[in-house]
Amino acid sequence: MDDLLSHIHSVEDLRKLPVKSLPQLCDELRQFIIEQTAQHPGHLGSSLGVVELTVAIHYVFDTPDDRLIWDVGHQAYCHKILTGRKELFSTNRCYGGISGFPRREESEFDAFGTGHSSTSISAVLGMAVAAKMAGDTHRNHIAVIGDGAIGGGMAFEAMNQAPYRDVNMLVILNDNKISIDQSTGSLSKYLISITASPAYNRIKNKVWNAFTFRTNHPNRATNFFSKMGNSLKGWLLGGSNWFQSLGYRYFGPSDGHDVVYLVKTLQDLKRLPGLKLFHVLTVKGKGLEAAEQNQTQYHAPGKFDPETGEIIHAEEKPQPPKYQDVFGNTILEFAREDEKVVGITPAMATGCSLTIMDKEFPERVFDVGIAEQHAMTFAAGLAAESYIPFCNIYSSFLQRGYDQVIHDVALQKLPVIFCIDRAGLVGEDGATHQGAFDLAFLRSVPDLIIASPRNEHELRNLMLTAYQNAKNQGLPFVIRYPRGRGVLIDWHNEPKALPIGKGEMLREGEKVLLLTLGPLGNAVENVLQRLDMEGVRAAHYDVRFLKPLDESTMMDFATKYPVWITVEDGTEKGGLFSEMAEFLENHKCSNRLLHIALPDRFISHGDIPNLYREVGFDEEAIEKKIREAWGL
Amino acid sequence: MDDLLSHIHSVEDLRKLPVKSLPQLCDELRQFIIEQTAQHPGHLGSSLGVVELTVAIHYVFDTPDDRLIWDVGHQAYCHKILTGRKELFSTNRCYGGISGFPRREESEFDAFGTGHSSTSISAVLGMAVAAKMAGDTHRNHIAVIGDGAIGGGMAFEAMNQAPYRDVNMLVILNDNKISIDQSTGSLSKYLISITASPAYNRIKNKVWNAFTFRTNHPNRATNFFSKMGNSLKGWLLGGSNWFQSLGYRYFGPSDGHDVVYLVKTLQDLKRLPGLKLFHVLTVKGKGLEAAEQNQTQYHAPGKFDPETGEIIHAEEKPQPPKYQDVFGNTILEFAREDEKVVGITPAMATGCSLTIMDKEFPERVFDVGIAEQHAMTFAAGLAAESYIPFCNIYSSFLQRGYDQVIHDVALQKLPVIFCIDRAGLVGEDGATHQGAFDLAFLRSVPDLIIASPRNEHELRNLMLTAYQNAKNQGLPFVIRYPRGRGVLIDWHNEPKALPIGKGEMLREGEKVLLLTLGPLGNAVENVLQRLDMEGVRAAHYDVRFLKPLDESTMMDFATKYPVWITVEDGTEKGGLFSEMAEFLENHKCSNRLLHIALPDRFISHGDIPNLYREVGFDEEAIEKKIREAWGL
Repeated sequence: MDDLLSHIHSVEDLRKLPVKSLPQLCDELRQFIIEQTAQHPGHLGSSLGVVELTVAIHYVFDTPDDRLIWDVGHQAYCHKILTGRKELFSTNRCYGGISGFPRREESEFDAFGTGHSSTSISAVLGMAVAAKMAGDTHRNHIAVIGDGAIGGGMAFEAMNQAPYRDVNMLVILNDNKISIDQSTGSLSKYLISITASPAYNRIKNKVWNAFTFRTNHPNRATNFFSKMGNSLKGWLLGGSNWFQSLGYRYFGPSDGHDVVYLVKTLQDLKRLPGLKLFHVLTVKGKGLEAAEQNQTQYHAPGKFDPETGEIIHAEEKPQPPKYQDVFGNTILEFAREDEKVVGITPAMATGCSLTIMDKEFPERVFDVGIAEQHAMTFAAGLAAESYIPFCNIYSSFLQRGYDQVIHDVALQKLPVIFCIDRAGLVGEDGATHQGAFDLAFLRSVPDLIIASPRNEHELRNLMLTAYQNAKNQGLPFVIRYPRGRGVLIDWHNEPKALPIGKGEMLREGEKVLLLTLGPLGNAVENVLQRLDMEGVRAAHYDVRFLKPLDESTMMDFATKYPVWITVEDGTEKGGLFSEMAEFLENHKCSNRLLHIALPDRFISHGDIPNLYREVGFDEEAIEKKIREAWGL
Repeated sequence: MDDLLSHIHSVEDLRKLPVKSLPQLCDELRQFIIEQTAQHPGHLGSSLGVVELTVAIHYVFDTPDDRLIWDVGHQAYCHKILTGRKELFSTNRCYGGISGFPRREESEFDAFGTGHSSTSISAVLGMAVAAKMAGDTHRNHIAVIGDGAIGGGMAFEAMNQAPYRDVNMLVILNDNKISIDQSTGSLSKYLISITASPAYNRIKNKVWNAFTFRTNHPNRATNFFSKMGNSLKGWLLGGSNWFQSLGYRYFGPSDGHDVVYLVKTLQDLKRLPGLKLFHVLTVKGKGLEAAEQNQTQYHAPGKFDPETGEIIHAEEKPQPPKYQDVFGNTILEFAREDEKVVGITPAMATGCSLTIMDKEFPERVFDVGIAEQHAMTFAAGLAAESYIPFCNIYSSFLQRGYDQVIHDVALQKLPVIFCIDRAGLVGEDGATHQGAFDLAFLRSVPDLIIASPRNEHELRNLMLTAYQNAKNQGLPFVIRYPRGRGVLIDWHNEPKALPIGKGEMLREGEKVLLLTLGPLGNAVENVLQRLDMEGVRAAHYDVRFLKPLDESTMMDFATKYPVWITVEDGTEKGGLFSEMAEFLENHKCSNRLLHIALPDRFISHGDIPNLYREVGFDEEAIEKKIREAWGL
């Protein structure tokens, strides 16, 4: 069979194909994604799941005039390949290459940038309302959203507003029964109940075929179908269609891997004005057996063999553990000792390794789904009852729970322990996922304790400190640590509690004082060792706690070291640098203060070494800064 | 008839009354609330609406052992009166008095502090899960939530998680068809459809009476009812019960002003384990005719005549307008000139005066309901289509939309205009509502323009500046201003655009430079006028823009004025003070920097003069600070 994909350079090329060629094209696309992602790691599973859906959407709708938004966006690989980025696809997620998520600046086909979950319906509704106000009754507005993402509160808020506006909007629910981990929640259960009702599906399909789409009056027919469908569903599903309660015309569920059927259905839906929800069933990882079998692992598997799917492990020599695994193992140890210890995460159980505790204590681990706001306040409720909740969330997703940290936790001084993973630069996921702001936005909240460990032992020590603090009804406690591996092979120390607010003097010295927070302290230490041999004998203090600040120690330092350098992997606007600048002003100290921090701009995607070089976190830049300070 | 209320000092006293006395008690409570709130302004309407419900809950359930959470919490006056705070109630919302919201520190009956909407189900679920883990199968957990609040995404997230946990939880949906403004959204419509179905209600009540509660096997009967009810509802309501889709046993709707019926029903529900939703219909403002007739105005009417309900207007002499009205009138002027101008608010149309534009351009005003996250991204979607959205939200509620400001607006450089009302101290609403953090948490976000007007003219100028900036596809623009009145009677200037980043020199001087942001600049000017006469000739620059900073002007100042004082009505951790401290360090300037800002702790409720004195915003404190600086 002739190759089709090599002739597809644009959506126009796609639209010239006969419908019957589309299955072949889908196979080729799938193969292309597998081959590319095997070498250039990315979000494999979700993109494989929507190949047919993507082809069908671009085949049927007039993108980019019709607006298409991919919720979360990591499933948009096929979309990128079909919309002019096939040749660039080998640079996916690479430094300087295309992003792993839709970006408005990358293509006019990326109607709205995504990355965090559950935004698509809000954004596409804004666009649909814009079309309506402009008198455009023809433009279509499509959000593709997963069954995990649609459970997010924000998506519900948008669904709830939408029916008040008479607009053209099609929500395609991509139901693969899994987000990154298994979807949780009753909506998810409910979706399963729809899908699993063969009686309903049999009858519905007959109705669908008989009345809806085989007529020249789609509106009238669909109205009829809508009423008819409602009754049928009410009867067969036990009285509920959630989406129709919210005012959507519900269509589905449909096989999301039958591209010909999808094209036909979307053609019909395109002609139908108003609000529609199309429920499509897909298999995450479709077409790569290993990925279908182990969907969580193949969400973003790293490098793998494109034939067998076998994951390639780069090195076999012992490596330091990931911080997330240190967290996971340590909370398990605490949970064994104290039945009041519970773990909470909004849909990141695998990513934060709370799965380790879940295996032994499933009844004390709460993966609440994509529900960051709820996760925080649920934890506060548990803390109010003297449980000790470790609430694990990624730094950039904590932005979703900010009000709850302030209003439900800090204001009530409830001793929730927030473990913030993916703090600092995360690398390939890029701007939407960089953990750049947490130090700044948390520092301004009263009554929070904020700490960051320099290494795995310290993470365990801080977790014990936080645990004991909570046991004694202390203040809420934040521990933030980065994505990826630590620095100690032998990570499993006997944790010991640390004095809150106190840091650690790592190196005595003169004139210049390095004030570091978190693992960047290790790079600083490497540099200082080298510089020491040349006589540049700067001192190094790991502050460990951003808040509360140990004022008496700092006053000491103010008299001893005329020049300070703060080092942190967060924004330069509001974190450790600001804390120290404020301290010096508040105490009328004239010390010089330099800083190493993230610049006040969004940092794009790429590998960590390149990004570190770009922002001045590499040892060369650190060395340069210290030399500059030494010369002051 | 004997007075009952004067004998009720605790819930034990309440529980000693016979059921038949409860209607009288409710009348007395209602009268007490009206009389008290007439003199000591507060949230009247919602509290009057739940008198019977409150009495019934405390009569039936074993509070405080049973956990009771009032969502939002401004409807908890009757709760406070019945739980030991009757004598204190005249201090409601006063400086040093009891809070207008439930507070854990105030009473053991306040199981969880509230203030912001839609938190109650998350918190009470945490408590219910705690009871389950502790093996307590008897304790009850009750959230009372309004029909507006239950539409918030966070409430949905909690509803969605709840059914996965086999816990005792009763959600009481207090349906008064109005939050502060009319509830919007399809869930709200749906609730009306339930309520308005007499056929359903007639049949349902028969079923309810016949099968559910007149048996010794409540579980079995209720299971039967549940199935039976499902089918009935499915049939009569057109196939949907939203709450049952989510796994809740649904009961209602019931008359929320029939206290005897409520008691009976709650007694039955108390015996029924598991997850339940009880739908209660109430009238906001019940018992005061004026309040029933004009529910939005009587949400928090200020002082009024307790007999007639007539609102007492303190002074008739001309006063400066409220900032919110200046916003409302100005956006209307812009909307008349440019059909691309749209207004968005999450449930604050009256509070932010977007109602003014709504009267003339209802199709371009979007009150999206209690949906802060959605509001932000919906605005971003409109901006992506070249509309010019003014998105109005209170400062403390913007904490709910923080991620969306970062991820959907700033990262994509979409020119949304955020008008942040209630920035700085708000007074009587207290700690949950103070707008203390916005300057800090927004300053760390790249690519935002952040400004605050000193008076009404400047607000209009900044709105025009933001409008023109958006028209030219500039960066997103934040304008923050306080609650309450401005300073200019003659507020209606011809707005003119201002240079972005530039402030205004208000007073030349020497040695000491006051750097102010926002209306506190007026108090500073008053003080400086007085001090000038004594020869203390400090200079005064209204920075107007927190971001971007006008670095060349600041460098000028650094050479001219050795001592600076920043003045802002936001936290001292991360706002203007931090910006200036960072600036001085970055430019190796040795100027002294003092500050006037909110301290790093939560500020409780009270009148503004008392709060200003407490935090050092009064003219006396400002003067003291300037003298201190002058002496340096």
